[in-house]
Amino acid sequence: MISFDYFRSMASAIGSQGLEDKDLEREILRTGQTVWNLPRFGFCELPYADPGRILHFAREQKPRNVVQIGIGGSALGATAIASALRPREGARYFALDNVDPEETADLLDQLRPEETIYHVVTKSGETTETLSTMMLALERAPVSRFVVTTGSKGFLRRFAQERKIPIFDIPENVGGRFSVLSPVGLLPAALLDVDVETLLAGAREADETCRKIDPHRNPAFLLAAIPYLLDRLRSKPIHVMMPYARALRDTADWWRQLWAESLGKSPSAGPLPVLALGATDQHSQIQLYNEGPNDKWILFLVPERYRSDPVVPSLLSGEPACDYLQGKSFSEILRALQRGTEDSLTANGRPNATISIPEIDARALGALFYTLEMATTIAGTLYGVDPFDQPGVEAGKRAAFSYLGRAGYPPPSSPPAESPYRV
Amino acid sequence: MISFDYFRSMASAIGSQGLEDKDLEREILRTGQTVWNLPRFGFCELPYADPGRILHFAREQKPRNVVQIGIGGSALGATAIASALRPREGARYFALDNVDPEETADLLDQLRPEETIYHVVTKSGETTETLSTMMLALERAPVSRFVVTTGSKGFLRRFAQERKIPIFDIPENVGGRFSVLSPVGLLPAALLDVDVETLLAGAREADETCRKIDPHRNPAFLLAAIPYLLDRLRSKPIHVMMPYARALRDTADWWRQLWAESLGKSPSAGPLPVLALGATDQHSQIQLYNEGPNDKWILFLVPERYRSDPVVPSLLSGEPACDYLQGKSFSEILRALQRGTEDSLTANGRPNATISIPEIDARALGALFYTLEMATTIAGTLYGVDPFDQPGVEAGKRAAFSYLGRAGYPPPSSPPAESPYRV
Repeated sequence: MISFDYFRSMASAIGSQGLEDKDLEREILRTGQTVWNLPRFGFCELPYADPGRILHFAREQKPRNVVQIGIGGSALGATAIASALRPREGARYFALDNVDPEETADLLDQLRPEETIYHVVTKSGETTETLSTMMLALERAPVSRFVVTTGSKGFLRRFAQERKIPIFDIPENVGGRFSVLSPVGLLPAALLDVDVETLLAGAREADETCRKIDPHRNPAFLLAAIPYLLDRLRSKPIHVMMPYARALRDTADWWRQLWAESLGKSPSAGPLPVLALGATDQHSQIQLYNEGPNDKWILFLVPERYRSDPVVPSLLSGEPACDYLQGKSFSEILRALQRGTEDSLTANGRPNATISIPEIDARALGALFYTLEMATTIAGTLYGVDPFDQPGVEAGKRAAFSYLGRAGYPPPSSPPAESPYRV
Repeated sequence: MISFDYFRSMASAIGSQGLEDKDLEREILRTGQTVWNLPRFGFCELPYADPGRILHFAREQKPRNVVQIGIGGSALGATAIASALRPREGARYFALDNVDPEETADLLDQLRPEETIYHVVTKSGETTETLSTMMLALERAPVSRFVVTTGSKGFLRRFAQERKIPIFDIPENVGGRFSVLSPVGLLPAALLDVDVETLLAGAREADETCRKIDPHRNPAFLLAAIPYLLDRLRSKPIHVMMPYARALRDTADWWRQLWAESLGKSPSAGPLPVLALGATDQHSQIQLYNEGPNDKWILFLVPERYRSDPVVPSLLSGEPACDYLQGKSFSEILRALQRGTEDSLTANGRPNATISIPEIDARALGALFYTLEMATTIAGTLYGVDPFDQPGVEAGKRAAFSYLGRAGYPPPSSPPAESPYRV
């Protein structure tokens, strides 16, 4: 279902900046045993959970608007689903994944509560941004329009129980950024009439594929090993995901969190995930990718078919600027632009690769989520870091609590010194 | 109007990963003379051009929908303006800046031509993506709903003349990515009733400020020199712009093209511009920025006031998870989160800096555009590259023309070999 072609990451295609077969073999010898003995992580069980209660809840609601109130892993997966898969006619998805004063007020004021479901998501049950937004939304909409998804402990669960708000669970052994196939992502999907069962079926198929014993046939292993080896052996610490479809842009943004937060753990480990959009960013970033420092790996994400495909009509003939476009479908043009970019990167010795999916649908998206999650945990093993924690965000949180005067957090030691470097 | 504080990029704030005063002094000695003798570039004149014809055209139209058909520099600036500044009630902006089959067909089918102005923008007059989309739009809407902005030569100008489509000009000496303050950005702005005159006034004020002779007081020089020196002397080739306002996200995306395409010119020069959004990406990228490789410079972009600012209502008391939030405004919370992030980066020796603007308005946005354009051209001087060309996109274009069978471009030499590395 998902095909991964990494030919253009290899020396045989791009020369000395690519990997040799022996580099891959050596890595298989070094870490293969560990990778093959990885436990079944919490997220691996999600595709096998029964979505019955989610579907039942959604069938009763059919709201016009679904507002996901959450941040980071509590929003990115739902947003990816809503962007990639088409909601039922007229239904709309919004993420309130910030405490932006303007955006939050504007959106909440614009939606009619009686047409809206507010889905509040935080695993800890205490996330600053999420609770602030929920409290503001509760001022504007009755409690009966709310549903929460949260962990087993924390304020939000107690609050929801008290107010009789329906509660869905994030399993304790599933971290936020691996939670898209839990109610975190599935509940909004179901509320939009996205085909949740096929999404899960796609993830289960990917699970089968990702268990392949031969590493050379295992897409999750290769999607970890190729960028890892390019980082370590060829100094390519920048990993760009470049979908050629607007509908997959937010899927790449979901991956951007997964890759950054799971692997960015030490001064010597932590590739930078970058999101680019084809063909748009050919006119923004490709100059740099082609001629700037050769420190990037570009991963194209390409659907083989599009769900609609207009054809350029004939406008006038004998004009070299239009003649070659007339009668071409948009997908032919986009594909030619992508291949042109691929060719130029390859000719310049810039490693790149392609994930292809047959079409943007629930099955492919489920498979993509699962495969990239598995690739990320394997990459954690290769880099020698724990892909499931995020200690590097704690200090900033504590400092913010201090500024906000939260009980138990000492006030900031002193007012910040007047900056001598301000113009 | 724009304030730039780079204290937290200096060794006195963050230790050895920051710059010393003497690093900056040395750079001023090395390049100051050249920088101070830079010519007045084409884009420097744009703030002084009379917008009379643009305003007149817009007053006659007042469309509900403005569709910008353009790619790269022909769309990013207009999109930045439309996102940051509020269009008149009911007016909507759309960019068709891709040849995405699904997105293009969906949008064109959804808009009523009689309520819509299609603004077609390409300096060369021949851009593949732009002409394809224009031809499709012309199939759905009468020619009277179109207006074009283009250079003095090329197909689009001839075509518009023939069909009596109004034409606005991109001056020959202004490149696409420096064209936001030409009709490329100003015409859609005016059609949305954005205050174009104040936008230009803000740019003129910035022009005055950017001419300051003392480099220590010149924000454009410092916005070039600080990231350049951090790249060269402290190995920080990754430059992150992180606005704390959704409305400024597309301004950072505009800058992302400007910085990448202007400076990404050789294997030894070309910082990677990265776009992040506060506070959202604190839950996506800050783990990596705080604990991963110390190879980044984070530039916060912060408005001092927001145009609306809801207050968290009281929900219940005695709950530590909410008590500290109740009665706080969203801007206070967002500011605390930003300062918390700033503090943690600083404590970890990660260089960062802040651009502040009083508020998101036309004056500040005009100043921001101009200052960042000037900073980019100065950075070109420091890096020793031509900031105005983009030779690295030509090979990919030629290859795409070949795939599309454009006259004068030889067909691809042979079908691509079957990849031996595909799973």
